[in-house]
Amino acid sequence: MKIAVFGTGSVGDTIASKLIALGHEVKMGSRTATNDKAVAWLKKSDEKKASIGTFADAAAFGEFIFNCTAGGVAVDVLTAAGASNLKGKVIIDISNPLDFSKGMPPTLSVSNTDSIGEQLQRAFPEAHIVKTLNTVNCDLMVNPGMLAGGDHTMFMAGNDAGAKNKARHMLVEGFGWKDILDLGDISMSRGTEMYLPLWLRMYGALQTPHFSIKVVR
Amino acid sequence: MKIAVFGTGSVGDTIASKLIALGHEVKMGSRTATNDKAVAWLKKSDEKKASIGTFADAAAFGEFIFNCTAGGVAVDVLTAAGASNLKGKVIIDISNPLDFSKGMPPTLSVSNTDSIGEQLQRAFPEAHIVKTLNTVNCDLMVNPGMLAGGDHTMFMAGNDAGAKNKARHMLVEGFGWKDILDLGDISMSRGTEMYLPLWLRMYGALQTPHFSIKVVR
Repeated sequence: MKIAVFGTGSVGDTIASKLIALGHEVKMGSRTATNDKAVAWLKKSDEKKASIGTFADAAAFGEFIFNCTAGGVAVDVLTAAGASNLKGKVIIDISNPLDFSKGMPPTLSVSNTDSIGEQLQRAFPEAHIVKTLNTVNCDLMVNPGMLAGGDHTMFMAGNDAGAKNKARHMLVEGFGWKDILDLGDISMSRGTEMYLPLWLRMYGALQTPHFSIKVVR
Repeated sequence: MKIAVFGTGSVGDTIASKLIALGHEVKMGSRTATNDKAVAWLKKSDEKKASIGTFADAAAFGEFIFNCTAGGVAVDVLTAAGASNLKGKVIIDISNPLDFSKGMPPTLSVSNTDSIGEQLQRAFPEAHIVKTLNTVNCDLMVNPGMLAGGDHTMFMAGNDAGAKNKARHMLVEGFGWKDILDLGDISMSRGTEMYLPLWLRMYGALQTPHFSIKVVR
């Protein structure tokens, strides 16, 4: 499948590299077509499957999209990608509204009555936003089996059942997740984004980002 | 041990009854010494161990205190209990800042840059606030073994190591918790209080309050 990955940070790099390993063709998008980190990712990747470009280039290329940018810029990034390039496509939104301007640990720039997932869905009503993967470190996103044989939980939220089925397929068949908990519509993004303050404090207490939660029921 | 329980709702009732079953003497505190729910609890409880009174009566009685009131009134409740009655005591704060005035699911009245746990510790600097138990339904608080043989996690936050040791002893030896994750000082309450929006959405998706999370690490 042709897949776009927005973002060149550790999340974008990890997701893009995993998708290549799974046999997909991946175009990494960033503000400029020659972003240094995107070039570095391209150099280490299979040149037959990997390519880079602007957000719009990537969005036009991908049948399926991963948004791996920071929550504070996510709407701007999708705007740069172009609504017509996003129409009808599944967009996996991994972003979190972390605000580092007030010191550590970061606070949330959006919470309680709104979320980045909802902002994106409102701004791009013809795209299918699926919020998921934002509750774990990027190494775990693509390799849940590194902890407890994968016996832990990934949340999902989105308005479109068909898009959630496609996202679930990617998570389970592609990345190896075993337990997906569908919370409901895109407003459920508030729940998983507001989990970040607890995640950050667990990170501090456990001194590793390689932990996850299993919903015991 | 002589223990005070502030609050007559389902959390206060459940905690107070469990403490009686464990052999403790319990005084349930409320605004008035003849609160209907407190009277109902007293009637069903062992009269040699159970008693009721005002918040101040209960606080004067208890060597150890459970705050089972709503987050929005917690500071007022402890004020009514009296700072001199709280001095040097462990106060287990189970409250959450849920605001039901804007519809369901509730939002948080305090978040991001403050928490009820911190508000209480600031208002009563000579008491030892320990934030815990606020991340599960009350049935699970006192009977974690009802799910997965108790193989799930309870968080804890507080400034005083000795108070946290006493709280841990109550959780483990009294209530049966096996996995306590100490997040650090009382500011870590922000993490567990901000988990509530996710908890509420899981409650909606799972259609039962009898679930918990295990921190897999």
